[in-house]
Amino acid sequence: MPESPFERILNARSIAFFGASNNPAKMGSMQMVHLVQDDFKGRVWPIHPKEKEVMGRPAYARVEDLPEVPDLAVLVLPTQIVPEMLEACGRKGIRRAVIISGGFRERGPEGRRLEDQVVEIARRYGIRFVGPNCVGVIHAARNFNITVYPYTLGSGPMGLLSQSGTYVTQVLMYVARQGIRYSQAVSLGNEADLDMVDGIEYLGQDPETKAIALYIEGIGRGRAFLETARRVSLKKPLVAYYVGGTEAGARSGASHTGKMGGNDRIHDHLFRQCGVLRAPSVEALYDWAWALATTPIPKGDRVAIISHSGGPVTSMADACARLGLKVPTFSPKTQAAIAPMLPPTGSTANPVDLTYNRNPGAMTGGIPKAVFASGEVDAFLIHGLGGMSGSGVVGASAAATIGLSPDQIKAFAELSNQGLIELKQDLSCPVVISTFSDPTDAGVSHAMRHDIPVYPTPERAASALAALVRYGRWRAGQKVAQA
Amino acid sequence: MPESPFERILNARSIAFFGASNNPAKMGSMQMVHLVQDDFKGRVWPIHPKEKEVMGRPAYARVEDLPEVPDLAVLVLPTQIVPEMLEACGRKGIRRAVIISGGFRERGPEGRRLEDQVVEIARRYGIRFVGPNCVGVIHAARNFNITVYPYTLGSGPMGLLSQSGTYVTQVLMYVARQGIRYSQAVSLGNEADLDMVDGIEYLGQDPETKAIALYIEGIGRGRAFLETARRVSLKKPLVAYYVGGTEAGARSGASHTGKMGGNDRIHDHLFRQCGVLRAPSVEALYDWAWALATTPIPKGDRVAIISHSGGPVTSMADACARLGLKVPTFSPKTQAAIAPMLPPTGSTANPVDLTYNRNPGAMTGGIPKAVFASGEVDAFLIHGLGGMSGSGVVGASAAATIGLSPDQIKAFAELSNQGLIELKQDLSCPVVISTFSDPTDAGVSHAMRHDIPVYPTPERAASALAALVRYGRWRAGQKVAQA
Repeated sequence: MPESPFERILNARSIAFFGASNNPAKMGSMQMVHLVQDDFKGRVWPIHPKEKEVMGRPAYARVEDLPEVPDLAVLVLPTQIVPEMLEACGRKGIRRAVIISGGFRERGPEGRRLEDQVVEIARRYGIRFVGPNCVGVIHAARNFNITVYPYTLGSGPMGLLSQSGTYVTQVLMYVARQGIRYSQAVSLGNEADLDMVDGIEYLGQDPETKAIALYIEGIGRGRAFLETARRVSLKKPLVAYYVGGTEAGARSGASHTGKMGGNDRIHDHLFRQCGVLRAPSVEALYDWAWALATTPIPKGDRVAIISHSGGPVTSMADACARLGLKVPTFSPKTQAAIAPMLPPTGSTANPVDLTYNRNPGAMTGGIPKAVFASGEVDAFLIHGLGGMSGSGVVGASAAATIGLSPDQIKAFAELSNQGLIELKQDLSCPVVISTFSDPTDAGVSHAMRHDIPVYPTPERAASALAALVRYGRWRAGQKVAQA
Repeated sequence: MPESPFERILNARSIAFFGASNNPAKMGSMQMVHLVQDDFKGRVWPIHPKEKEVMGRPAYARVEDLPEVPDLAVLVLPTQIVPEMLEACGRKGIRRAVIISGGFRERGPEGRRLEDQVVEIARRYGIRFVGPNCVGVIHAARNFNITVYPYTLGSGPMGLLSQSGTYVTQVLMYVARQGIRYSQAVSLGNEADLDMVDGIEYLGQDPETKAIALYIEGIGRGRAFLETARRVSLKKPLVAYYVGGTEAGARSGASHTGKMGGNDRIHDHLFRQCGVLRAPSVEALYDWAWALATTPIPKGDRVAIISHSGGPVTSMADACARLGLKVPTFSPKTQAAIAPMLPPTGSTANPVDLTYNRNPGAMTGGIPKAVFASGEVDAFLIHGLGGMSGSGVVGASAAATIGLSPDQIKAFAELSNQGLIELKQDLSCPVVISTFSDPTDAGVSHAMRHDIPVYPTPERAASALAALVRYGRWRAGQKVAQA
């Protein structure tokens, strides 16, 4: 298979950067600053008509003056001069670009004319590019971030392709609270050249990326999407949030990125045909993709539910039933095996309700291990991680009450989580967690660092697990069909 | 109407507390400690067989020895001695109790026998009680909290009646992140005496409570629920999360609080008949009830959407269409009125996409005020509050970039929000917000303190607004039907 055009963009070793200056409030400066401040190992060449130096790097008045041909040009420029500058890049021999600038097709006929001109220049020079009208790209493991937002979450297993820049950058404040980390993320913008299909092809081959989240306002190449997504989804889960299926959504998308949305049912059918899980919201998009990126795929749909809270296990059981998952009553043998790990007030049948925590490792290790060994279930939902520390209303109080220091709490939380990590790593057991505690809690942040998926409510954990089960069914069915 | 039995429980001025000691790790101690530490103005009388003093308060060996007849007894005792102690309360003349202790009906035949005994004693003495098997009650404005969790959120307009203690207490860590505050909250436990219907009657009359959230595993008195909820829902919104409608949910609920769940469709019909909005999850329960408790009811279903992010407005528009809300294109006159407040790249049609923020008050004041004055819409969805400060990944960086101090950021955030507060208070305009920033952001926490409902994703804001519209339709329809 030929190398993806994205390869040299996301792995660029040298970059010509247009539009950064020494004024930190300028868009271009905010987009280049991370290349300077973060530990990016490539070479960065600012192109600026007047400055001799930008952020401590020697600046060049014209791209033609650069001492080498960079792998990539990044353009954060007024719309009108983008064609001219891209042409200069072409003459220099640059063959990849990210065009951040907006004001093209999404802004009417004059913008469309300019975008056509950009495409014509790119074709002439063999330049493949992302954008225009995007916020850039992130390759976390390389500290390569040309968006306006700092990316401080570290490298993770979830890839992201988005027709909205907000869902790459602004959303970082949101995904950080769930411990979500990107492998690589691309804001596709107007997709005048490289599009969602190219992105799926690229991330489909990326070994760091274990699942791919897609935010879609409109699909330009339906047939190619179908073929590529179907091929990739056999080895790697794809989750799509499509917002162009209603009149209001399509109209909004058209003025956002110039995308044409279309019939909701046709898109629903398209996603089904190629094994793409369709998420109903931004929340589900990240929730599901993160579970799929981090968690072993269940072999079936039988779920064990464990908590020390009766309300959340009941919410989980009800949600599972609505989502088509089974919550089987455990055999007497399995109930007898776990009974010694529960206080006398507990329930052993499934859901397992400990009522209170006598042994910190029981809920997150001893009980699920014994149940998994029985072969009676395929996956686990556990509610109530953490709660011993953190900024939550109870944290400080509970810690003070039992007289533990912050270090002791941290050690205790990590010990409590040891079972979860063994379940995942040694037993390939699918476990999805929910908790009302947040990542300021040592137990929660520890689980998140180990790629255990943690959700803020019982039903969201159940919904993420149901996505894992549906993906498992798709892959099993497709493999059978191909055999 | 006779005084509700809950009245003297949640407004108790003197309390006999059974089960607290000087060992802070004991359940009873954790439940009494807030009455001692918080600014509760009533008298607290610990009853303890051995201690002379509990948490600095003089303790009494027997309730009979108290110098007065307290309004309320709180029992956090081993199951077996609950009947005897309740009988002693009865002899003393106490007529209200909260029985925290578990081990009753939810634990099989022997527990059921004990619970029957408790009910018999209570009837004999005319004692009305909450529980058993509950975590207690909270009356925020009185600093009256007898749960194990500290309640530090302050008093708010949302009432809560829950058949799970977790959804009163553990969930505080979760609701705090959305700025949700209780007026009064009751963990109903096994409902051996006072039940959900009594609670609805009571909170229905409480002037501090503007909407009531219900967590339901099973409804004991269907007819009474229907009649009471229908009457209360005409003046005050009710939102219910019912988890007993599936086999798995009903089974789990039975071993949790001994509740019998039942047919999902019958319950669906029941809720519809009495104007109770049925929430599909814990998330929706709190999301909707908080919007209903804080926000004016829209007169119709026409929504304006405003943001500086194209992705979230498209998500909101698509979600609105799916939820049955209209997103009308503004008239040329209205578009002309708001155009001067947008940068040239912005969209004025609805959704309004500012693309970037030129004037901090435009999105949250100038634009919605001008649109609302047009009469073309009934409500607003706004995405993107805050983002200037807080612990989010971008906060510190953005603030440093524009060279503002934390105090300046706070003042700026509050100024930006002024329009939102005027819209709500002066114009009774329904506005629901979403943002990826969290309450550590000065702008977000300021809005939350002013009871502006703020959600973490665009679709959750849209879903909360749809709940407001549905409630408005119910109330309008019922008023017509009664006229």
